[in-house]
Amino acid sequence: MSGTIGTPSAAPGEPTASRIDGRTPDRLRPVTLQRDWSKHAEGSVLVSFGDTRVLCTASVTEGVPRWRRGSGEGWITAEYAMLPRATNTRGDRESVRGKIGGRTHEISRLIGRSLRAVIDFKALGENTVVLDCDVLQADGGTRTAAITGAYVALADALGWARENKLVRGKAQPLTGTVSAVSVGIVGGVPLLDLCYEEDVRAETDMNVVCTGDGRFVEVQGTAEGEPFARTELDALLDLAVEGCAELDLLQREALGEL
Amino acid sequence: MSGTIGTPSAAPGEPTASRIDGRTPDRLRPVTLQRDWSKHAEGSVLVSFGDTRVLCTASVTEGVPRWRRGSGEGWITAEYAMLPRATNTRGDRESVRGKIGGRTHEISRLIGRSLRAVIDFKALGENTVVLDCDVLQADGGTRTAAITGAYVALADALGWARENKLVRGKAQPLTGTVSAVSVGIVGGVPLLDLCYEEDVRAETDMNVVCTGDGRFVEVQGTAEGEPFARTELDALLDLAVEGCAELDLLQREALGEL
Amino acid sequence: MSGTIGTPSAAPGEPTASRIDGRTPDRLRPVTLQRDWSKHAEGSVLVSFGDTRVLCTASVTEGVPRWRRGSGEGWITAEYAMLPRATNTRGDRESVRGKIGGRTHEISRLIGRSLRAVIDFKALGENTVVLDCDVLQADGGTRTAAITGAYVALADALGWARENKLVRGKAQPLTGTVSAVSVGIVGGVPLLDLCYEEDVRAETDMNVVCTGDGRFVEVQGTAEGEPFARTELDALLDLAVEGCAELDLLQREALGEL
Amino acid sequence: MSGTIGTPSAAPGEPTASRIDGRTPDRLRPVTLQRDWSKHAEGSVLVSFGDTRVLCTASVTEGVPRWRRGSGEGWITAEYAMLPRATNTRGDRESVRGKIGGRTHEISRLIGRSLRAVIDFKALGENTVVLDCDVLQADGGTRTAAITGAYVALADALGWARENKLVRGKAQPLTGTVSAVSVGIVGGVPLLDLCYEEDVRAETDMNVVCTGDGRFVEVQGTAEGEPFARTELDALLDLAVEGCAELDLLQREALGEL
Amino acid sequence: MSGTIGTPSAAPGEPTASRIDGRTPDRLRPVTLQRDWSKHAEGSVLVSFGDTRVLCTASVTEGVPRWRRGSGEGWITAEYAMLPRATNTRGDRESVRGKIGGRTHEISRLIGRSLRAVIDFKALGENTVVLDCDVLQADGGTRTAAITGAYVALADALGWARENKLVRGKAQPLTGTVSAVSVGIVGGVPLLDLCYEEDVRAETDMNVVCTGDGRFVEVQGTAEGEPFARTELDALLDLAVEGCAELDLLQREALGEL
Amino acid sequence: MSGTIGTPSAAPGEPTASRIDGRTPDRLRPVTLQRDWSKHAEGSVLVSFGDTRVLCTASVTEGVPRWRRGSGEGWITAEYAMLPRATNTRGDRESVRGKIGGRTHEISRLIGRSLRAVIDFKALGENTVVLDCDVLQADGGTRTAAITGAYVALADALGWARENKLVRGKAQPLTGTVSAVSVGIVGGVPLLDLCYEEDVRAETDMNVVCTGDGRFVEVQGTAEGEPFARTELDALLDLAVEGCAELDLLQREALGEL
Repeated sequence: MSGTIGTPSAAPGEPTASRIDGRTPDRLRPVTLQRDWSKHAEGSVLVSFGDTRVLCTASVTEGVPRWRRGSGEGWITAEYAMLPRATNTRGDRESVRGKIGGRTHEISRLIGRSLRAVIDFKALGENTVVLDCDVLQADGGTRTAAITGAYVALADALGWARENKLVRGKAQPLTGTVSAVSVGIVGGVPLLDLCYEEDVRAETDMNVVCTGDGRFVEVQGTAEGEPFARTELDALLDLAVEGCAELDLLQREALGEL
Repeated sequence: MSGTIGTPSAAPGEPTASRIDGRTPDRLRPVTLQRDWSKHAEGSVLVSFGDTRVLCTASVTEGVPRWRRGSGEGWITAEYAMLPRATNTRGDRESVRGKIGGRTHEISRLIGRSLRAVIDFKALGENTVVLDCDVLQADGGTRTAAITGAYVALADALGWARENKLVRGKAQPLTGTVSAVSVGIVGGVPLLDLCYEEDVRAETDMNVVCTGDGRFVEVQGTAEGEPFARTELDALLDLAVEGCAELDLLQREALGEL
Repeated sequence: MSGTIGTPSAAPGEPTASRIDGRTPDRLRPVTLQRDWSKHAEGSVLVSFGDTRVLCTASVTEGVPRWRRGSGEGWITAEYAMLPRATNTRGDRESVRGKIGGRTHEISRLIGRSLRAVIDFKALGENTVVLDCDVLQADGGTRTAAITGAYVALADALGWARENKLVRGKAQPLTGTVSAVSVGIVGGVPLLDLCYEEDVRAETDMNVVCTGDGRFVEVQGTAEGEPFARTELDALLDLAVEGCAELDLLQREALGEL
Repeated sequence: MSGTIGTPSAAPGEPTASRIDGRTPDRLRPVTLQRDWSKHAEGSVLVSFGDTRVLCTASVTEGVPRWRRGSGEGWITAEYAMLPRATNTRGDRESVRGKIGGRTHEISRLIGRSLRAVIDFKALGENTVVLDCDVLQADGGTRTAAITGAYVALADALGWARENKLVRGKAQPLTGTVSAVSVGIVGGVPLLDLCYEEDVRAETDMNVVCTGDGRFVEVQGTAEGEPFARTELDALLDLAVEGCAELDLLQREALGEL
Repeated sequence: MSGTIGTPSAAPGEPTASRIDGRTPDRLRPVTLQRDWSKHAEGSVLVSFGDTRVLCTASVTEGVPRWRRGSGEGWITAEYAMLPRATNTRGDRESVRGKIGGRTHEISRLIGRSLRAVIDFKALGENTVVLDCDVLQADGGTRTAAITGAYVALADALGWARENKLVRGKAQPLTGTVSAVSVGIVGGVPLLDLCYEEDVRAETDMNVVCTGDGRFVEVQGTAEGEPFARTELDALLDLAVEGCAELDLLQREALGEL
Repeated sequence: MSGTIGTPSAAPGEPTASRIDGRTPDRLRPVTLQRDWSKHAEGSVLVSFGDTRVLCTASVTEGVPRWRRGSGEGWITAEYAMLPRATNTRGDRESVRGKIGGRTHEISRLIGRSLRAVIDFKALGENTVVLDCDVLQADGGTRTAAITGAYVALADALGWARENKLVRGKAQPLTGTVSAVSVGIVGGVPLLDLCYEEDVRAETDMNVVCTGDGRFVEVQGTAEGEPFARTELDALLDLAVEGCAELDLLQREALGEL
């Protein structure tokens, strides 16, 4: 099966921007969602936001963790990790250090919550989907790329689950779509989808997870330098909602739903 | 030295509320900040928000972690933990399990970031302050109580550092005050400062960290059930800003600054 | 329910002592046993011996560890830990280091053995009680304070177990009372209940656990400097037996049995 | 910069083979070596042997481990790992389990030894190269693919080191080329480059690492079922030497040396 | 029961050898196999190859690991370790470091595979044998000594299993004998059974595991310096096969089968 | 160098005893102290108390741990461990479990303290001795056998340190001798040197460490069943002092000092 590739989001004729890569403040980087990247996983997507590349695989198994057995409900969980040289300087492997760092934990939990927000666990039945999001190359926005890609991998995995009768008849475990994007204030200007260089210089950094109907699943804003005012928060939320709407289109296009 | 105790925030003559403990939606639980709880630490506060009790100690040491040596700048870090029976059912000790859970990591990082937001590291000089926030009893809002109490312990520890000449002459490491509160939507109603029972039933849960001048250090909102709309987000932010303003008063009162 | 507070053991009209805090060699520090400190645990006591403060909680669960299932007998176990800044200089968290130190292990095992010595496991039935002893502030004698406080927490927890029908009718799991105290030789003088400064200077250090009828559950004596003679050992045992008899009274007073 | 892609090794007009994928016993799977796959690493290659895909990155740093300082000699080390869903059923992450498995350790050590065999450490000077070989998709022969790809990544990294003056003037750290291939006996027939299905059914399994001049760096043969005879061993070695000679050509072609 | 002691393999009238201990290149060191060294284990052997001493115990338990239950087949596994001062300079305990090193893992796996090669798992029935090989003193060749000794311990343990009716009637779990020896090229000369000093200086190092009928279970050859040629490999294999034949005799002698 | 072997302590013509192995209550098991068991360690002793066998090695290194540098004083530390099949049923390796158990920690600390009690750290100079006590076979009293054997290994290691000029001229690091024995009450009778079967049935269990002049280094008594009375404690101490006096003779005999 061939992968579906999203179209780049930059367009001709726009005003000259001051961003490092020539984007205007409200532009996403080129985003691609390459389905069926792996032959083994029930769903797999290589997602890229510019130079950020994350391999998202969805693994379906019958049964649920012990604490959920007999509930008739399924479970979705996620694990995020970075290859050691996904970044500019090599990081130690967490397996070698023997423990998982706080950042990794935090992002894995965020991805899991984000995807569970669009799942009807009753409809899923007692099945588990594990989403593995491994960053092959990092250039900012890895967690939001991971969520955006993982949604597509999850959709494919749930399709597989239906074909293989793990999900019954008319049950529809997906209750909506979900995507995520980073926004931030750099040099006083609110920007959409920060690359690494912008991220490092951002005064405020925010990750926003939205459903396809424009509501929020998660909002995480952090002042890296000065605290931020309510008006700045509002401007960032506006940018993020628009960005997610665009990602929603790309996801549906990749899934052949448009 | 005697501790300073904040005044309860409930007042007579208010409209009957539907909350479990009789509060109106915009009321904090009784908050106390008991300074000098420990004889060893340079700063120590037993903070309570209702039945939530967190012991916050601030430990000052000369010197900074290796990656910061020679920078002339200090460092602030935090560790959060729960006693095993702080909660309704006993949890395993993380020391016994041999690893720190994702939630603990996430909250420790949040506390550290929140306090660093009001620090001038140059003024601190090459000194380190470690904030230990140990939950002795949990009833919702432990991370926000921890931030609120840790600020007071930090202020005391920085006073100690000045008296002991670790911080030079007129240097003022604290650039502002910081407090935090949880807000959430329960049964469709935005509420301030959720207790555990409310937290469990919340559709949306948000932790907000503000400086004394009403700006944001951190905003973390999560849809526990349905995604939330922009109007709901706005209502929650309004409540949180008011709550933090009240906590700011209680902190300054405890520190004898009012 | 209100806590019961033991009376201080120092009395007027005694000969002037050379101890740091003015006690005579055979005096305990002021001891308090504050019951029902925690709203969650089935039994909980904040015990203090002078400035040493230990929070002891007793958690009851139905069922026993796998190796004991089907035996009809219960189990009691204990975990001891120190908050990082319970001591004069901050210690690393064992959860952060990823392993439990030898001292912690040793004391946890001692507390468990001491309490099991006064339990009839048949009468307890297949129930487990976990005693968590967390040192909030350390000033010498934390392990013996922990045992003394844990006994009271255990007694309360067993009362709860009876009220809640986990323990049947006339069964009495407690077969006696147990308390503990440290003794040591400092500057050639045998002393009861060493504070930290005395402990550091002790030539010989001994922890003694006694039942209410004056018999021994555990005797652990260590030469910190010179080996000790049989006569010294005898003098220390005499002091310890007297101290435990006094603690036994305070425990029964706290439990309302006097 | 574009990657160099090796040519598939299957040719038309050959006798019909009984192998699963139609190869004759002495044929490699299609092998590709895609250079510069990562923008961050000093050398990076995505190598594939059929459906086996391994991302090999080479990270150069000045300096050497402590035990080698002052020797004037460099160091080369390697770490191998599998993504959790590189295989048909998902495996637990070693970072989550908190320890590295024996197989991972064994392969990491093999890769490191193999590459060190073609290095002149004096010429390298006190620099370290870490080779990370992460299996993105597994279909047999992952360790031999890793060695073959890592060699190319290492050659690129050493080129970078020379351009950046870490390696001096005429020093040539590479003393030869190295590649590796698996061979095995399946159904009594010696086969080159086993895919997963063949590997599972193999009676004898051997991994052979050769230098470009046809000598051996490592020979590891294991009887999975029946012990193997000297004649069988000899047949397998013949196949492996031929396979490595072919890989040597592909490596040099990828590096633009042909 | 008395142990059986192998006879030293050096003989009078041979040409003067250049080896450190006076052996000719094709001579084993004195090998002893002392059975029943431990009173607890079902089989136990203290094996020595010169100054290398390994205590091998075989522990039999009914039942198999979970993944093998219900198969009707047994399992054999092995764990290798070194006492901290088995070597010339003390090594850290792996229990203290909290993790098992790569070398230990690799050797444990090798021993397990080697012994499984001579087992009929159906005949063993659902029983498990764990072989513990603890190096008490190391002087080269510890893994091959461990395999050679573990075979004898395993044979004794299987005899015990039959006597105790864990293995049924005529079932014969052992399908052959297995032993192992190291060979290597030192100063250009192929040598049998390297002691530590030879091992350190070896250009090529090989461990060979053979069955009693002269076939191979495992061949692991590594170039420590220069890659090795096919003719060198052949010479080493010849030496190893002869050495294993001699060890096979010593094993059978120790077991009273000659 | 040949080992020195202690003489068995049972004598003819004594009254028939009721102990499992025919000893009278005040008799040690046969004790042997085999010196120079290992060729690598600076001191090494294989000690046996009946069927309990512990290999004690003493490793000397120049320098001390960081916290002691520049003090001019040395350090002594100990590590105790059991081989997995030293006991009747196989125990998991602590290296495999990834953590050290409480019992192991406790005993390692006891051994270290006991030997430090007879050391003049100034005379030792900035040198470290590590005592490894590995139980090869367990039959009760492993910790006391370890202390007794470790003393002899330590004495040999200190002799080596003097010969090799690590310890200067007339300095005498050893200030006395130390040995240890277990005592206990079984069926109401105080017994010396319990074997495993007696240990399991003991109502009270005590380990006593004495110097050669009959003073105490450590006394650890535990009620396994009923609490014990002062008279019982006294009887046990009497037995232990006599046992240690006998061990002191055997140690000096082994060291050739008698």
